Amino acid sequence: MNISIILAHPNPESYTHALAHAAREAIQAQGHIPWLHDLYAENFDPVTPLAELARDPGPLPPLVQQHIEEITRADGIIIVHPNWWSDPPAILAGWRDRCLRAGLAYRFEPDGKGGGRSVGMLAARFALILNTQNTPLHIEEEILRNPMRWHWQQVVFGLCGVKDCTQQLIGPVITSTPEQRAQWLAQSAEWITQKLKSLSEEPQP
Amino acid sequence: MNISIILAHPNPESYTHALAHAAREAIQAQGHIPWLHDLYAENFDPVTPLAELARDPGPLPPLVQQHIEEITRADGIIIVHPNWWSDPPAILAGWRDRCLRAGLAYRFEPDGKGGGRSVGMLAARFALILNTQNTPLHIEEEILRNPMRWHWQQVVFGLCGVKDCTQQLIGPVITSTPEQRAQWLAQSAEWITQKLKSLSEEPQP
Repeated sequence: MNISIILAHPNPESYTHALAHAAREAIQAQGHIPWLHDLYAENFDPVTPLAELARDPGPLPPLVQQHIEEITRADGIIIVHPNWWSDPPAILAGWRDRCLRAGLAYRFEPDGKGGGRSVGMLAARFALILNTQNTPLHIEEEILRNPMRWHWQQVVFGLCGVKDCTQQLIGPVITSTPEQRAQWLAQSAEWITQKLKSLSEEPQP
Repeated sequence: MNISIILAHPNPESYTHALAHAAREAIQAQGHIPWLHDLYAENFDPVTPLAELARDPGPLPPLVQQHIEEITRADGIIIVHPNWWSDPPAILAGWRDRCLRAGLAYRFEPDGKGGGRSVGMLAARFALILNTQNTPLHIEEEILRNPMRWHWQQVVFGLCGVKDCTQQLIGPVITSTPEQRAQWLAQSAEWITQKLKSLSEEPQP
């Protein structure tokens, strides 16, 4: 299986990066192929140009085109980002804006104008959202209502047809011990390992 | 009064732009000063560089510095953006990420590490969020739970201390008549006019 990992954090030494790298290793250890994209390292441009609002925008920039081809084909999707305003950092918001295109990631039937019935088009059999943060978890969950979970599970991957979408809220990182951070890494890797094993055992259509 | 208008849409001919321009005219008509920023026209860079994660990042790029000075001083804030994934377009998400800085737009007491009590620091006496969209309004409200309202009212301006924050969900634009669009413009302008009048009549501390 090919598993996309989309990573958005400006610091290559960050714990967010460590989580993405642990995910990559867990995928490789199961004999599958990770497609890891560090959006900052790629200098991904998150600003949707006017031309891309068109239904048929013509040729897209090669990096955007590559992202679209991978994310529509991936058997699984792992998104790794810090909690900034209970939302993805702008560079990842722009990846979403530009790469999850109508007609490729989802479509509306019959009218294509936002009415009608939505049809998800991504091939992925699961999505995992790893959200690092410094806000205490109970504040994010109880006071702020965990908007990132709703965003990715319902608004984004719900529309794109990835029904199995799990979020892990990880933190507070800033006050964590090395032992706690190592434990979170191991837990994420184990979750991925078990998910890949269970998908490999399912009969394929 | 100085009223900031932050506009995010790639098409200068868009209805979203028309709403921002109508807001500017309503502010001027009341004898106040609009600070209108068209983020696309300014080529605003939404990507937070690593250096800006520091508490004291040193000198910021002039455009970011100007935005920070204005948004912290503005007497009112109007945000105008389309609904993309029930979220702001990336260029505006990045304006939020870079310009609403800890220590300037909000702070935490006593520890500065995400615990403790948050203290809003923006001077604005109101915020108005104008959200254009093609999704039917009842779907955005009832199925998707209107995440943009919660985001701006609670997560962003709640933290920054702007308690009076109103969202207007406008649409569906794609199927609207010219008469309907003219009516929405007039309603937004009238809302702004009445808000500015009522604030002008309030006794100042």
